[in-house]
Amino acid sequence: MSRIVIALGGNALGNTPTEQQQMVKQAVPSLVQLIKDGHQIIVSHGNGPQVGMIDLAFDTACRTNEKIPPMPLPECAAMSQGYIGYHLQKELSEELHREGIKLHTASVITQSVVDANDPAFSSPTKPIGSFYTKEQAEALMAKDPDLKFVEDAGRGWRRVVPSPKPIDIVEKGAILSMAEKNIVVIACGGGGIPVVKEADGSLKGVAAVIDKDFASARLAELVGADVLFILTAVDRVAVNFGKPDQKFLESITASEARKLCAQGHFAPGSMLPKVEAAIEFAQFRPGNKAIIASLEKAALAVRGESGTAITV
Amino acid sequence: MSRIVIALGGNALGNTPTEQQQMVKQAVPSLVQLIKDGHQIIVSHGNGPQVGMIDLAFDTACRTNEKIPPMPLPECAAMSQGYIGYHLQKELSEELHREGIKLHTASVITQSVVDANDPAFSSPTKPIGSFYTKEQAEALMAKDPDLKFVEDAGRGWRRVVPSPKPIDIVEKGAILSMAEKNIVVIACGGGGIPVVKEADGSLKGVAAVIDKDFASARLAELVGADVLFILTAVDRVAVNFGKPDQKFLESITASEARKLCAQGHFAPGSMLPKVEAAIEFAQFRPGNKAIIASLEKAALAVRGESGTAITV
Repeated sequence: MSRIVIALGGNALGNTPTEQQQMVKQAVPSLVQLIKDGHQIIVSHGNGPQVGMIDLAFDTACRTNEKIPPMPLPECAAMSQGYIGYHLQKELSEELHREGIKLHTASVITQSVVDANDPAFSSPTKPIGSFYTKEQAEALMAKDPDLKFVEDAGRGWRRVVPSPKPIDIVEKGAILSMAEKNIVVIACGGGGIPVVKEADGSLKGVAAVIDKDFASARLAELVGADVLFILTAVDRVAVNFGKPDQKFLESITASEARKLCAQGHFAPGSMLPKVEAAIEFAQFRPGNKAIIASLEKAALAVRGESGTAITV
Repeated sequence: MSRIVIALGGNALGNTPTEQQQMVKQAVPSLVQLIKDGHQIIVSHGNGPQVGMIDLAFDTACRTNEKIPPMPLPECAAMSQGYIGYHLQKELSEELHREGIKLHTASVITQSVVDANDPAFSSPTKPIGSFYTKEQAEALMAKDPDLKFVEDAGRGWRRVVPSPKPIDIVEKGAILSMAEKNIVVIACGGGGIPVVKEADGSLKGVAAVIDKDFASARLAELVGADVLFILTAVDRVAVNFGKPDQKFLESITASEARKLCAQGHFAPGSMLPKVEAAIEFAQFRPGNKAIIASLEKAALAVRGESGTAITV
């Protein structure tokens, strides 16, 4: 039996509640197959489109309806964990029931600690929320010096927030306790709600987004997982992707992977963070294995018959 | 040591993220005092103002921004659990840390099963969301026959939804496992996301709201709690409330309480459901004790020095 942290992409969850429900329903049999194969799984997931939608809904509504307060990004992330976690645990518990597996499942609201001195805070890069005119953006920045807007590819001005690295998962103890009780835990949604630790030890939510693959790697390390499973839209990682000499990778070492990253084989914001998170987990402890694979072939990938495995 | 399910009111959590953060910060020392006194606590909470705000934000935004999908009520409830659970677990974990108590805390997204044949479904009574004109309300009802709008005290037309009784808590096993691991669990937010069980065993979210006191009573029964603690704005339940012969109650039996309910001593939608939920828990198992008290005097109330205790 392996303990597996498996990271679902937020883009694989659709843009509306109806889409999400359907896509989650399609995803759960592959997750439950891992349980049937004897593994313990902890499910994490992205929230890019979903937290964007929630942020945009409050942003839009509070401009026309004085009953709606502005909603800070950490609270929007918390809402997205509830919204996605609900569908995941509903469909997972049904699928477990259908398969006659008597396991409980539950989503845990999760906070990820980031370093207030993370260089990402001085150069926010992740666009979120609505498009504004230049004048609107400048007025908003004048009103709140913490906000930063940039021109986004001719489509208008958009707020950008930093994407710092997660250094700790506040609920790691609860998540581990649940896994040890054989509860199928859903945690670390959207990489976790970003919080910084203040001098007095208190936690403060910050306007940032955390990469879900890095947060999943950190979670996998903290709960002593054997396997970090990063799901993607393709069956295997490729070098020279989309070119005539494209080559899919079955198994590489962390140092080989690092070289390929440096050679620019992987797209930033897409495959690159997945490979980087996989390297980090593989190097954390001898015996750790990171796998990048498609959801459909997850069970095959754990057996080494699909996906790209990264080990030390 | 007693296992205590303690139900916080949604109205005691404020109407904005800033208010909620402050009010939760003020609430947690009383909760942690119960832990210091040797009890195991499971925290549940209401979500009336919060789910109303989320529903209204999506309702407002999706009318002017085509990127925002309509958000069904169960998904809004799930978001409210994330939103409130985040603040509760953040402040609880900080307070536990300050007090040197090495316990973990985590919020669990919770679904409550209701009966599709509950009589509440044929007479929806709980108003939610925006006000509409008569013409708008009639057009919306013509478009979707499942929607019901009523005229609300001269203020306009508003959607009403049913408030069925919770019969089961889907995540009871996970919640109990966590409690047994001494995790301070936050669960059953807003009474739980209302779901009905379909003929094939699958769960379907329904547009309804569940009374958080009834859901907390059901949760307390299912996890074998000794005490159900229902927090309210006053120190004790009173008969002839607000009249010259007002009398506060220290300890009553479930059958005395039932008589007082029948005599109309308690306001529907306010103290009445609290007393009814307390009666239900007290009668569930010999030795069960329900307490209705103020948050500030929670520790005193558990020792019998404040609050109103209801036993068999």
